[in-house]
Amino acid sequence: MAASPAFILIDMTLNASSSCTQVDIELGDRSYPILIGAGLLDAPSTWAGLPRAATALIVTNDVVGPLYLERLQHALQPHYARVLNVVLPDGEAHKTWETLNRIFDVLLGQAFDRKTVLFALGGGVIGDMTGFAAACYMRGVPFVQVPTTLLAQVDSSVGGKTAVNHPLGKNMIGAFYQPVRVVCDLDTLQSLPARELSAGLAEVIKYGPIHDMTFLDWIESHLEALMARDVDALSWAVRRSCEIKAEVVGQDERESGLRAILNFGHTFGHAIEAGLGFGTWLHGEAVGCGMLMAARLSQRLGHVDAAFVQRLVELTRRAGLPTVGPALGAASYLEHMRVDKKAQDGDIRFVLIQRPGQAVVQGAPDALVAEVIDQSCRA
Amino acid sequence: MAASPAFILIDMTLNASSSCTQVDIELGDRSYPILIGAGLLDAPSTWAGLPRAATALIVTNDVVGPLYLERLQHALQPHYARVLNVVLPDGEAHKTWETLNRIFDVLLGQAFDRKTVLFALGGGVIGDMTGFAAACYMRGVPFVQVPTTLLAQVDSSVGGKTAVNHPLGKNMIGAFYQPVRVVCDLDTLQSLPARELSAGLAEVIKYGPIHDMTFLDWIESHLEALMARDVDALSWAVRRSCEIKAEVVGQDERESGLRAILNFGHTFGHAIEAGLGFGTWLHGEAVGCGMLMAARLSQRLGHVDAAFVQRLVELTRRAGLPTVGPALGAASYLEHMRVDKKAQDGDIRFVLIQRPGQAVVQGAPDALVAEVIDQSCRA
Repeated sequence: MAASPAFILIDMTLNASSSCTQVDIELGDRSYPILIGAGLLDAPSTWAGLPRAATALIVTNDVVGPLYLERLQHALQPHYARVLNVVLPDGEAHKTWETLNRIFDVLLGQAFDRKTVLFALGGGVIGDMTGFAAACYMRGVPFVQVPTTLLAQVDSSVGGKTAVNHPLGKNMIGAFYQPVRVVCDLDTLQSLPARELSAGLAEVIKYGPIHDMTFLDWIESHLEALMARDVDALSWAVRRSCEIKAEVVGQDERESGLRAILNFGHTFGHAIEAGLGFGTWLHGEAVGCGMLMAARLSQRLGHVDAAFVQRLVELTRRAGLPTVGPALGAASYLEHMRVDKKAQDGDIRFVLIQRPGQAVVQGAPDALVAEVIDQSCRA
Repeated sequence: MAASPAFILIDMTLNASSSCTQVDIELGDRSYPILIGAGLLDAPSTWAGLPRAATALIVTNDVVGPLYLERLQHALQPHYARVLNVVLPDGEAHKTWETLNRIFDVLLGQAFDRKTVLFALGGGVIGDMTGFAAACYMRGVPFVQVPTTLLAQVDSSVGGKTAVNHPLGKNMIGAFYQPVRVVCDLDTLQSLPARELSAGLAEVIKYGPIHDMTFLDWIESHLEALMARDVDALSWAVRRSCEIKAEVVGQDERESGLRAILNFGHTFGHAIEAGLGFGTWLHGEAVGCGMLMAARLSQRLGHVDAAFVQRLVELTRRAGLPTVGPALGAASYLEHMRVDKKAQDGDIRFVLIQRPGQAVVQGAPDALVAEVIDQSCRA
C-alpha cells in the first residue's frame, strides 16, 4: 500500500521574523506534513486545518511542560472547546503501560470522544507514548507530534512508530500509527541540554552513511554551527533528515524491508541501553556508538574501508558523543541483540553499510560480531 | 482506503464428510477469507497457506482449552517448529491489560519474533484480546481467529475490531487490526452452553432489521433448527451473517460512518452490561434486549410500526433471550451511554431502524430515550 514518495517543499512566510519549511510524508490517506521552522509554537497558522473536535489533550512531561505547555495550550484554545493536559514524569523509565494508562484515565474520566485530538509535546518518549495512546484510545484518535528535542524532530516523531517498553524488551508493545501533523519548532532546541543535542546529532549523522554521503559532507562542514544551535544549520539538518526518512518510510511504512535501514546503529545501541539499564546512556548516545560498531562490522565483512570507519568515529567524537562502548562483554551484547525486533528465529539481523551511502540488512557470524564488540569497548 | 466489497463463494470438498464455505472480506492488502464448515479443526487444508513462521502461539481460555486445544496444537504442528499456548481465565472480567500482558510475557519470554502467528481459540473475549495482542506485539504480527462460539463466528471474529476493557469503559483500548484468516468450525458449536447459543442468535437476528429482511424471514422459519444446532441451518446463519458484515466492513473498515449500524442494540446493551456489572448478562443477551429498546425508540420516532417491534420481541423471546431490561433507572442507562464510543461531545448516537432492513445513526431527546427505557425494563 506504500505510495511512491514525493516531496513538496513550500517556504511560507508566517511573519516577518520566522519562515517555515514543509516536508510531506506521502502515505496515501495517511499522508501528513512536517512543518519545520522557528517561532511555530506561537504562530496561529501552525494549528490551522487540523481535524475538527470539541476536545484536545496535550501530553507532556515535567521537564518540557514548564517551558512550553502554557504557550501550546494558549495556541490551541481557539480551536477546541476544552484543551486539557496531562504531565507525565520524564524519562525512558516511565515509558510503560502504567504511565500510558494515566493518559487513558484522563481521556475516559473526562469522557473525551473519539474525535479528540492528542498533542505530544516533548521528546521521543512523549511522542512514542502519546502516539500509542492515540492509536489505542477508542481504537484510534488523531494526534499531532510537537517534538522539542533534535532526536525527536529528525527521527522519532516522523514515520508513525509508536510504542511502550515491556520489562522484557524496549518498544516491544506498540503500533504503526501516523500523526496528522508534525510541528518542529526549532526555537525549542535552544533549551535542550548539550548532551541531548549531541544525542540528536547521532540520528542526523546516521542518514549520511545509509543514504546520502553528500549530506554527511554537509554535516562535517557544519558541525560547529549545529553545536552552536544556528537556526539555519538546524533547519537544514532537520529538513534533510526528514526528507530521507520520508523517502524510506514512503516506500516501506511497516518495515517489511527497506525501512529497517533506518535502524543503523540501533541493534548494537539497544544492547548498550539494555545492558547498562535503560536511561543510563541516552538513546542517541547508544545509537551513535552502535553506528561505529556496525561500521566496523561492515568493514570486517569487506564492505567499507578503515578510512570510512575512522571518518564516522571522528565525526561522532566531534558531535560530543561517546565513541567507545561499555565493556559489558560480547555475550551480554549478543543476548540482548537476539530479542531485537529485527531478529528472525534467533538470528540477529544487522543494518550494515554495503558501500558509503547505501545500507543492507544481513546476518553475521557470532564470533566476528564478538570480535567487533571487544574491539569497540573499553576494557 | 476501503475497497468495494465483493464476495467469492467457493464450496470446497475437504473430505467425504465435511464441506466448507468461504466468505471473503475484501479490504485491499488486508483482505482475508472466512472458512465456515464442520470438521475444519482437524482438516489439514484449513491450515495451509498461512504466513510462514518458525513459531506460533495459541491463546485460549480454561473452558475452551480442555475441549479443543490439543486438536488445534496437533493440526498446527506440521507448520511451525514451535507451537506454544497460553491458557487465560475465562470471562469478560479478565479482558484487561493485565491478562493481555500474560500473552506478551510468553511471547517475549520465549523470544518469539515478529513473524510469529497468533491463534485465537475461543469466544469473543479471546478473539478481542488475541487480536489486540497481535496488533501490538512488535507493532504487529499476523493472527488467525478460530471462534468457538456462535457470537464470535457471526460477529466479533470478523471485521478486525480488537480491544481490552478499561475500568472506566468497555472496549475503550484497542485497534482495528484484521486477522489473516477466520476458521469457523461449526462442530465447536455443539459444545456451546444453551445460554451462549442464544446470545449468539441475538447477533444473527441483528443482521435482519439493519440490512436484510429476507434473512429475518429465514431466521424466523429456521429458529428451531438453529436452537437444535442443525449444521446446515448453522452454516447458512453464519455464512449470511458474515456476508452482511463483510459488505458493511468492506465499505467502512474504521467505522467512520456506515459500519456503526452493526452496533444495533449495542448502545442500550452496553448500558445494561455496565449498569449490572460486566459479566452478569452475556454480551449477546444485552444486545438482544438492547435491540428491542432501539426498535422501540425507532417506533417512537415514527420510523417503524408496533408490529415490527412486536416481531422482534417475539423472535428474541423464541431464541431464549431476555426481552425485558434490568430496572437500573433511565439515568443510569443515559450516563453509561454517554461514554459509548459512538457518542460525540456528550451526545449519544443511536443505531435505529429507519425502515425494516435499513438502519440509521442519529440522536434522540433524553426524555424520549428515558421513556423507552422505562417502558422496556422490569419495574
